[in-house]
Amino acid sequence: QKRKFQFQTYVSSLLEKVCMDDMKKVIHSIKLGIALVLVSLLYLLDPLFKQVGENAMWAIMTVVVVFEFYAGATLSKGLNRGAGTILGGGLGCLAAILADEFGGTGNAIVVGTSVFIFGAAATYFRMIPKIKRRYDYGALIFILTFSLVVVSGVRADKVMALARERLSTIGMGFFVCLFTNVLVYPMWASDELHDSTASKFRKLADCIEGCLENYFKIIEETEKQPSANVSSCKSVLYSKSSEESLANFAKWEPWHGKFGFHYPWDKYLRIGEVLRELSATIICLKGCVESPKQPSSRTRQEIKESCKIIGSEVKQILRELGESIIKMKRCHATILILPKLQFMIMKLSLIKSPKIEDPQTGESIAIASFIFLLMEIVEKVEVLAKEVEELGKMAHFKIK
Amino acid sequence: QKRKFQFQTYVSSLLEKVCMDDMKKVIHSIKLGIALVLVSLLYLLDPLFKQVGENAMWAIMTVVVVFEFYAGATLSKGLNRGAGTILGGGLGCLAAILADEFGGTGNAIVVGTSVFIFGAAATYFRMIPKIKRRYDYGALIFILTFSLVVVSGVRADKVMALARERLSTIGMGFFVCLFTNVLVYPMWASDELHDSTASKFRKLADCIEGCLENYFKIIEETEKQPSANVSSCKSVLYSKSSEESLANFAKWEPWHGKFGFHYPWDKYLRIGEVLRELSATIICLKGCVESPKQPSSRTRQEIKESCKIIGSEVKQILRELGESIIKMKRCHATILILPKLQFMIMKLSLIKSPKIEDPQTGESIAIASFIFLLMEIVEKVEVLAKEVEELGKMAHFKIK
Repeated sequence: QKRKFQFQTYVSSLLEKVCMDDMKKVIHSIKLGIALVLVSLLYLLDPLFKQVGENAMWAIMTVVVVFEFYAGATLSKGLNRGAGTILGGGLGCLAAILADEFGGTGNAIVVGTSVFIFGAAATYFRMIPKIKRRYDYGALIFILTFSLVVVSGVRADKVMALARERLSTIGMGFFVCLFTNVLVYPMWASDELHDSTASKFRKLADCIEGCLENYFKIIEETEKQPSANVSSCKSVLYSKSSEESLANFAKWEPWHGKFGFHYPWDKYLRIGEVLRELSATIICLKGCVESPKQPSSRTRQEIKESCKIIGSEVKQILRELGESIIKMKRCHATILILPKLQFMIMKLSLIKSPKIEDPQTGESIAIASFIFLLMEIVEKVEVLAKEVEELGKMAHFKIK
Repeated sequence: QKRKFQFQTYVSSLLEKVCMDDMKKVIHSIKLGIALVLVSLLYLLDPLFKQVGENAMWAIMTVVVVFEFYAGATLSKGLNRGAGTILGGGLGCLAAILADEFGGTGNAIVVGTSVFIFGAAATYFRMIPKIKRRYDYGALIFILTFSLVVVSGVRADKVMALARERLSTIGMGFFVCLFTNVLVYPMWASDELHDSTASKFRKLADCIEGCLENYFKIIEETEKQPSANVSSCKSVLYSKSSEESLANFAKWEPWHGKFGFHYPWDKYLRIGEVLRELSATIICLKGCVESPKQPSSRTRQEIKESCKIIGSEVKQILRELGESIIKMKRCHATILILPKLQFMIMKLSLIKSPKIEDPQTGESIAIASFIFLLMEIVEKVEVLAKEVEELGKMAHFKIK
């Protein structure tokens, strides 16, 4: 009965999470729709259209391209687009004026050469990892604007006026984006990074618990060992790239809600790294638990008590650490958590099972390895606790 | 002397690799420059400009945006752009005509509503993971074209003519992209996926070797245990997302060189998954090797011989598997490799060191765990060998 109830709450919390995610997507879609309608007004309202003319196209283009899911991503793309357009337009104007001096065929040659040189150089520049991470889109827009301005400079004499008009419409598009994306129900990448980091602690705690439960389940010899579900552990292991892009967007997001300027986002990346190392160890533990070399489930019962206690304490500590992040409360790892963990390691190294004392079988190796991996996990949790405490200091979490 | 020589060859091979990578980037930049100059000719040559007019802008834009590093990425973006433009333009025309029927304020209302509905729907569509992976850019262009056509339909009566002209210039831009990107010195994502998968086998083999060497190095008690370099192992662990995007591009690349149509790219993803599991185990092994709980380096010598033999055989087998992929030769895993691996596991389970026989110390747990992790590695290599053999069958590798 209790199991069924647990299962139901699990399903309903899962459904809720899916709905939340889906809800966010729907809201984002509606926000884009609103932004598009707002920017279409440049065309639809006669007085506005008279002001901007066909250049209104650039405003629509800006909205469609710059409007991203996260506020930080939108800001980053918008500022990149602005900077790329100004730089590309400015240099393009200069090149067009220079080309004009030559006239005739000379003109075409200068235009062609400058397009080639700037295009190739900016493309090379774009592929440098550090630039790619933050300014990829800006470089793309630089190439685009430079080429457009310099080649159309050959035809239109009013390059300057054209550039100014285009820039102002891009600015209008960006303003509409800012208005709908950042001011109305914004999705902050910083919130997402903060929450997902905290939730990883819970995920890993559950995985450890699952592995231990499976290990100490009494099953008949003929039954198959049930397989622990470590998919959430794997998702932590493979979260590096999404985490890095979230941290990148978070840095673009200005002071808001609970995060100030100079919030230590890099510390989140460091914690993520340790979490990934921990999840690699948990995956090893799963392999060890499910190894056919393990002794029969009845034999394992002898170390059950001490391991179960340690397992539940590790789970408790991981949850505490996650909550300390989500609630932005200091955790006093050095005083409260580290002694506990060190005591656990001592306890683990004292565990004696008859199997370990009889070294002639492969089973003793398997069970010793299980204990060793548990120790490794406890040690990784120790590192995590220190990192979370440091984060608390750096980010000025509440002390009580 | 020999060490120094090894170091030199290592550095020179590394330099060579960096140069190769850099060379490719330079070539890519030059190719983009050439494509830009070619497409600029639409502006620079009078007869061409008379044909296309200001729409030449769209050709330049297409080249800048669609020109990607890998041929598959360029093809995918180009085709997505084409499809998105046609679909968006077609629906936009219909909506504009419908809006025209109403006239006056009704017109503006219909335009605004359709922009809202189609924009929001396509944005939601874009966020479905499966669509996002392959058709993200197409959906973006759909929204862009639809909005542009439907709002400018309010002004220009010649929507159809405009759409046709724009489409043809986009086609020209795409053609220039195809010509310079795919026909001249193409960078195939399929080659990159193929080579990088094969090179991961070598990387992991080197990591295993490094761990074992460190473990059996005789050092004085006072010295610090040297730390094995597992950075290449971590790079394998975190390669999931880049591997997936390469596989995605590879599927867009038509038959070329050694890969036919229907080449089993998904099998590469499966092999990559097993490689990542293996590297998680190697990282655990590194943790185990460097654990302070290990017995002194002199004690470890007693199991050195058997472990070293197994280590070098595992290394040999991993290299063989990698070579089988890179040279596209069948590997006969079931007959030649699997028996070896099974024999190794048997040998490992028979290893006896005095430490293991004396279970009273934490050291026995550490050394048992080392042996167990070696077994796990051997077992993962077994899975890998089977997968590589299957790949050989599916991709019709050479039998001899």
